[in-house]
Amino acid sequence: MLLTMRPIGYVRSPHREALDVPRGLGAEHHAEGVLELLPEYEAGLTDIEGFSHLYVLWLFDRSEGFELVPVVPADDRPHGVFASRAPRRPNPIALTVVELLGRDGARLRVRGVDMLDGTPILDIKPYLSSVPPEKLRRGWLAEAEERKKREPA
Amino acid sequence: MLLTMRPIGYVRSPHREALDVPRGLGAEHHAEGVLELLPEYEAGLTDIEGFSHLYVLWLFDRSEGFELVPVVPADDRPHGVFASRAPRRPNPIALTVVELLGRDGARLRVRGVDMLDGTPILDIKPYLSSVPPEKLRRGWLAEAEERKKREPA
Repeated sequence: MLLTMRPIGYVRSPHREALDVPRGLGAEHHAEGVLELLPEYEAGLTDIEGFSHLYVLWLFDRSEGFELVPVVPADDRPHGVFASRAPRRPNPIALTVVELLGRDGARLRVRGVDMLDGTPILDIKPYLSSVPPEKLRRGWLAEAEERKKREPA
Repeated sequence: MLLTMRPIGYVRSPHREALDVPRGLGAEHHAEGVLELLPEYEAGLTDIEGFSHLYVLWLFDRSEGFELVPVVPADDRPHGVFASRAPRRPNPIALTVVELLGRDGARLRVRGVDMLDGTPILDIKPYLSSVPPEKLRRGWLAEAEERKKREPA
């Protein structure tokens, strides 16, 4: 299946290369950046200011191929690619939740970027509801966190 | 930019056509369905059982073209496509959070499907954390809900 994907814009990020992005257990993303839409898509942002958080779908444009059971930074044991956020996926689409800080025309200032500078943006969607924390189970990631706590420092 | 997207599988859903899917204000999705991965991707599900919720990225394969400021079922006023979940988007990728009920090999039984039967799946990711409800603002959607409450029944 061939699909024409058009970048709707690009990320401006303080992260220049993959090693700049916090990774692994407990990594937090507080970096601020800008989602710069192409001028022809600006109208699509109408009324977006009212939302505090957005989903950003973007392209892992600097990774190639895919691995079904990769080892990821958060653990020394391999896990399925669909049970992880590893970049080398059958369809290299990434998903990040960002906080919307403000809008200037076609530019959205956001907090929480884990993308590299220049990353192509595929879509933006409003974040509408959360899974309640008491209903959430986090599988191997929670186990890896527990193991790390028990390790001698 | 031409990207080769490969469906990793297909959704089995009780919804046969768009009108079967609950839409508009207060619509809730409790329908159960199955994410049927192609056998060659089954290894990518390793350890997914430990997660209670998943992101499913899928293709709006039955919509064509896009509209930047559509009218959507939740409101009688138009809003930007990136401030909505409207299907006619520049890149027709959809995002749904589902609850994982169980796995049989390459089949994931899930709750919360709002996809049509036969929908191509592009990616599955673990749902790792939520935005706390007290930090969430829902813009025009919250306003449309308020207006509806004030309307005479």
